[in-house]
Amino acid sequence: MGRTVRGPPFGSYCRCLIVDVKKFAIPEIIFGRGSLDYAGLCARRLGAATAFLVSDSGLEKVGWVSRVKEILERENLRWVHYSNVVSNPRDHQIEEGADLYLKEGADVVIALGGGSPMDAAKGIAVVASNGGRIHDYEGANRIHRPLPPMVFIPSTAGSGSDISQFAIINDTHRCVKMSIISRTLVPNISIIDPLILETKGEELIVASAVDALCHAVESFVSPIASPFTESQSLRAIQLIVQHLHRAREERSLDDLEQLSIASTAAAMAFSNASLGAEHALAHSLGGMFDVLHGLVHPVLLPAVMRFNLSASTEKMAVIGEIFLGKKRRSPRATAAAGIDRLEAYCQSLGVPTRLRDILPRRDKLPELCQMAVKDVCLLTNPRPASWEDLLSICEGAW
Amino acid sequence: MGRTVRGPPFGSYCRCLIVDVKKFAIPEIIFGRGSLDYAGLCARRLGAATAFLVSDSGLEKVGWVSRVKEILERENLRWVHYSNVVSNPRDHQIEEGADLYLKEGADVVIALGGGSPMDAAKGIAVVASNGGRIHDYEGANRIHRPLPPMVFIPSTAGSGSDISQFAIINDTHRCVKMSIISRTLVPNISIIDPLILETKGEELIVASAVDALCHAVESFVSPIASPFTESQSLRAIQLIVQHLHRAREERSLDDLEQLSIASTAAAMAFSNASLGAEHALAHSLGGMFDVLHGLVHPVLLPAVMRFNLSASTEKMAVIGEIFLGKKRRSPRATAAAGIDRLEAYCQSLGVPTRLRDILPRRDKLPELCQMAVKDVCLLTNPRPASWEDLLSICEGAW
Repeated sequence: MGRTVRGPPFGSYCRCLIVDVKKFAIPEIIFGRGSLDYAGLCARRLGAATAFLVSDSGLEKVGWVSRVKEILERENLRWVHYSNVVSNPRDHQIEEGADLYLKEGADVVIALGGGSPMDAAKGIAVVASNGGRIHDYEGANRIHRPLPPMVFIPSTAGSGSDISQFAIINDTHRCVKMSIISRTLVPNISIIDPLILETKGEELIVASAVDALCHAVESFVSPIASPFTESQSLRAIQLIVQHLHRAREERSLDDLEQLSIASTAAAMAFSNASLGAEHALAHSLGGMFDVLHGLVHPVLLPAVMRFNLSASTEKMAVIGEIFLGKKRRSPRATAAAGIDRLEAYCQSLGVPTRLRDILPRRDKLPELCQMAVKDVCLLTNPRPASWEDLLSICEGAW
Repeated sequence: MGRTVRGPPFGSYCRCLIVDVKKFAIPEIIFGRGSLDYAGLCARRLGAATAFLVSDSGLEKVGWVSRVKEILERENLRWVHYSNVVSNPRDHQIEEGADLYLKEGADVVIALGGGSPMDAAKGIAVVASNGGRIHDYEGANRIHRPLPPMVFIPSTAGSGSDISQFAIINDTHRCVKMSIISRTLVPNISIIDPLILETKGEELIVASAVDALCHAVESFVSPIASPFTESQSLRAIQLIVQHLHRAREERSLDDLEQLSIASTAAAMAFSNASLGAEHALAHSLGGMFDVLHGLVHPVLLPAVMRFNLSASTEKMAVIGEIFLGKKRRSPRATAAAGIDRLEAYCQSLGVPTRLRDILPRRDKLPELCQMAVKDVCLLTNPRPASWEDLLSICEGAW
């Protein structure tokens, strides 16, 4: 044991040890029209007897919750349903859910919904297995004990929580959205059934897709992007540009399915490469003013991209080329024209595009930005940003 | 419980239940120059105290085995080293390894090597945890008990065993390569360090890359390909076409790294979309004549693609466009010209390109093809193939 190493490879080996090492982790994915039908089998394969099903009232109304319950019963699984989840899920909802999980002796978490029920389900899994309050786990890599198995079924094509190691929970005392990031938050299985998207309205389709677009853009220019995340980011952008308008207008299943693929690709990217200043600001807006997450991106994404342009010109030019369909005379020109086109694209979606349209009080902007600089997403913005920088981004977008 | 479901979504839901559902599962990937250094931490994170390190004598000679042992010792891990593995690993080597694993009380399997040590390590993990002989698990989904945690470190850019749910083991009694396919064969963690490729010779670099190219092509045209595998297949083909020649001639680390990425992408694809007739034949060649796996593909891939052309014209045209850099007048013309170019490309690599160059006896071809039709990879060939079809492919490639 312990022979001395020798030879040329270790020379370069040691020189390179400080060079960047990247991680890429995603759940097992079950994808396709009708894949929801596998939910019971998946839960059973993970050893479940009693499934803790987290969802929201909207999905209950259109019948998807009943459908999942039936599928679970067909596999002779007991289920407990927790639906007290709202948009920007609250800390006290996590605690209530974790208490119920433990009281009912559940042994697998199934989430059915958009980002809010899925993030709530992650929070419940953390508190039920690791104890304490959800606040104890804010930040990166603070969950130390294993979580119960998790099967997630996204009902929107955008949040990517079914793929990611992120959970965003509202601290209702501080009015802050806490970012909780851990490898253990990646669900075991993501069941992506595009048929579920058919029951979604136009507004939610657009808001979700723009969230995914933002995931793709921010992860692509992240300093910790890897070849494995970059290709997923670009694919997501291409698919959204190709399919969002038609998905919104015609609601064809083919286009909705492509948005599902785009959202999944974007989530594979941001889960491993993280995000940037835009999401840091979006989290603060959600925490302080309960603004719907999907409404923020058309407002802030172009402004944040302009701020980042000098620090990430080459990569922004690659994004620009997708939006423009061609290159301009220089990378900088392609990048800048691409951002203009992306901004026009957001305007064409019929959603608010100025900060004043979604935020009640301009005088709160400094406080908002002072909160956003503490968000962990800002660490991977390609250009360092002070709270004053964020403020001028917000002022510009007002 | 058990409410009746209602409303329009379930109409289309039920109609679509027979529509194809695709799975996509990959290990956690740790990628980059110097990432080998994380091997000990990864093993420890998976709960290891005694690592069972599977490798071959070549890697021992150039010092990589010692390097891994050092890394494990730094994490206070005990290790047991098993290196009695040859190309086309044998059933009795698996049994010997599993005995040693149990005798030494090991609790994690670490593989360092090309496809052979990695497949052997999988076989050892199966027999040590599930009992019996490795032959009991031939085919798809026959492993029922969990395996020990596995950390794999590929030393070539080609086999993809560090990513895949495949293990190929030689049945020395029947002279057959057994394909063992199971979700549980996906390692927990793949550590991909391009620096290890620097110690590889030109011949191995080419053979491995052509194996990856074949994985990419066969998985792309597989009838169970999904949007998640297709994008990986195409990316692999593009990267190999761009970088293999330079990697072979200049051995630059940048090009070797791109081949690593290509091999990983191809493995993500074939692990989930499976392979086709070319790999069915390659397995038989390896089983009957102990032919090096990497030598088979330049010989058989163009011939198999021509056989499949009519069943997969559109997809072959996409591959053709990558090789040609442009489209021809029709998909069929692009596909056919692309195969010609791929064949010329293989010839330019300075490797044997006729079956007679690598196979001793032409009279054994019928027996070889009768064995190949039983290989599980043939199930996902885009065009059904009888043993007589395979024979005419082989005769054409003679």
